[in-house]
Amino acid sequence: MPHAPTDALKRRHDTVRLDIASRSLDALVVTALPNVFYLTNFTGSAAIAVLTPDRVFFLTDFRYVTAINESRDTPYECPDIELVTVDGAYDATLAKLLSSSSMERVGFEAAHLTVSRHNWIAAAVARANPASELIATEGIVERARVRKDAFEIATLREGARRLSEVAVGVFDEVRAGRTELEIAAAIDRRLRESGFAKPAFDTIVAAGPNAALPHARPCQRRLAEGDLVVLDFGGVYDSYCVDLTRTVTVGSASARARDVYAAVLEAHDRAIAAVKPGASRFGVDAAARETLAAHALGEAFGHGTGHGLGIEVHEEPRISRRRAGIDDHVSDEAIDPGMVFTIEPGAYLPGWGGVRIEDDVLVTKDGVDVLTNVRSDLLEL
Amino acid sequence: MPHAPTDALKRRHDTVRLDIASRSLDALVVTALPNVFYLTNFTGSAAIAVLTPDRVFFLTDFRYVTAINESRDTPYECPDIELVTVDGAYDATLAKLLSSSSMERVGFEAAHLTVSRHNWIAAAVARANPASELIATEGIVERARVRKDAFEIATLREGARRLSEVAVGVFDEVRAGRTELEIAAAIDRRLRESGFAKPAFDTIVAAGPNAALPHARPCQRRLAEGDLVVLDFGGVYDSYCVDLTRTVTVGSASARARDVYAAVLEAHDRAIAAVKPGASRFGVDAAARETLAAHALGEAFGHGTGHGLGIEVHEEPRISRRRAGIDDHVSDEAIDPGMVFTIEPGAYLPGWGGVRIEDDVLVTKDGVDVLTNVRSDLLEL
Repeated sequence: MPHAPTDALKRRHDTVRLDIASRSLDALVVTALPNVFYLTNFTGSAAIAVLTPDRVFFLTDFRYVTAINESRDTPYECPDIELVTVDGAYDATLAKLLSSSSMERVGFEAAHLTVSRHNWIAAAVARANPASELIATEGIVERARVRKDAFEIATLREGARRLSEVAVGVFDEVRAGRTELEIAAAIDRRLRESGFAKPAFDTIVAAGPNAALPHARPCQRRLAEGDLVVLDFGGVYDSYCVDLTRTVTVGSASARARDVYAAVLEAHDRAIAAVKPGASRFGVDAAARETLAAHALGEAFGHGTGHGLGIEVHEEPRISRRRAGIDDHVSDEAIDPGMVFTIEPGAYLPGWGGVRIEDDVLVTKDGVDVLTNVRSDLLEL
Repeated sequence: MPHAPTDALKRRHDTVRLDIASRSLDALVVTALPNVFYLTNFTGSAAIAVLTPDRVFFLTDFRYVTAINESRDTPYECPDIELVTVDGAYDATLAKLLSSSSMERVGFEAAHLTVSRHNWIAAAVARANPASELIATEGIVERARVRKDAFEIATLREGARRLSEVAVGVFDEVRAGRTELEIAAAIDRRLRESGFAKPAFDTIVAAGPNAALPHARPCQRRLAEGDLVVLDFGGVYDSYCVDLTRTVTVGSASARARDVYAAVLEAHDRAIAAVKPGASRFGVDAAARETLAAHALGEAFGHGTGHGLGIEVHEEPRISRRRAGIDDHVSDEAIDPGMVFTIEPGAYLPGWGGVRIEDDVLVTKDGVDVLTNVRSDLLEL
């Protein structure tokens, strides 16, 4: 599996180290696995990275030691790595490492570390090294991840290209009489055949009234003539997530289906047109939301317009409403080059059905590059 | 999808409420989704349950409101549920609920709530209702989950039966020239066709030297004559996880492969023979570990002998070594009827290969019931 080249990892470390230094921290304990992967290329299920000004202490257990050693002297080895093998409990090994060092102000990821683990580690470190202190930090690595580097953009672009190819095949799967579950299984098979390691989330096939549930699970319902069918699927390609939705009809669409579809497509197109460097993410959301409201579908659109894509299928930036009392003074409103996110407005009418249209976009220096490439007119299959 | 009947949910609530009452808590805030599912049958991706002596306040957002309402007056509706729709942020809605009530001692799940969320909620509640206090709790719902009820046992039994059928088909997929990835994709396809919603974890197909990595990822390596191949796969059946491993050879096994296989099988059989009510989980692990040590493979077995199965693929009880300084005085050592866990000893020899044999067992009143049912002699395919 291709991984980030060593010099890309080094640049990521440098970015994060600047942030750590600005907080006068001696180290950052990284426990969130997507963040560990971002800094080290590690794809296993258990590890802790401790980033200091000149080392990456890497804690993992015997299951992964061989894999780490095999990455040495390859073009994607993690720079400055110092392997610490965990024999027993991760947090005990971490506390020992922190206690035996001269680190005093040690940052941890407050959004990821649980209260139990924090309290245990803090007590163990305090006993062994009273000069040491755990400092809560928020989103240090995530802030670096929000602007993708060249390696990540290339990976997401290729993932989106393959996902678009899958979509064309998916349209062939839709016909009256098949169940939602059968179509979902066929989509997952096509994802695997197209080189995705796995679906990025549980594939959604929602037909007829089920299409009114934005997060419906596929069920044994058989598709019927006239159904609107929401097809929402994504894949993990070389550890990066891409995500696509199209809504089609089985046979001819009703006049109402055409109207709702046209409104959602207009919202989708206007939101994409609003994406450019410096634009507000709340403004992009508003472009979709106001369009739907103008078609009397404002109430039918209850979720955000989009979410960031990357190592996780839902990450920053959130393309959503400005929430009164919460987002009044946010400082991370602007859209910047290198951000990759979905644009996916929808309209959901309980008892009747729903429409969602989703593409993945990259913010460029000059504007926007739509990474997915699938026709967006209403397909009557 | 079948769910737990309402009376089973009621019994689960009663069990958890006894524990809550014994800690003089007025409520327990349940944020871990597997625990939320256990108490309510909710299978979505976002919800918080607040269990009080007579209510289950259920916080979810508009995406799931329709699904919750549709479960009303069905045989699997959650008893005493009071729906609280989240418009905006979950934790703000939770803080508002807690502040507006007369609850004073409110337990939270310290092993699941992050430091960030805890601090935010605690501050919001303290401002609005100074008499209220958040109290850290550990594993309250998990302790109820460790002994499966009749509905869960029936589900796990059926899952294990289907997984065993899948295994027989999987043996047909193994032949020289195919890649690990192709075989993994075929296993996942068979899982779906057999009624599993998805794999319970990333399927492992590890051949030749890759078999020495207990958590190998399938790669483009083609199977070759003489390879040992570890096939480790599981599925989620009606929300419950089952897990199975067999190791086979491509063509004839070497004398060494036969010896290592025989030692691992003996360890597997002895561990299963040690499972009975009242036995120590450390003792079951020792039965496997000492057998491998007697065959000079003690160093080659680095992981635990097994893990609990249920809503999660790794849960309590852990069938593992007693860790000095950590497990010296554990109070939950005994194996009890209703527990379901894996027995999966292995031996891993870097550069050469490895063997793992895994089955799922249910502890009964009288002893043990092996839920998976697949031949365990060395198959030379």
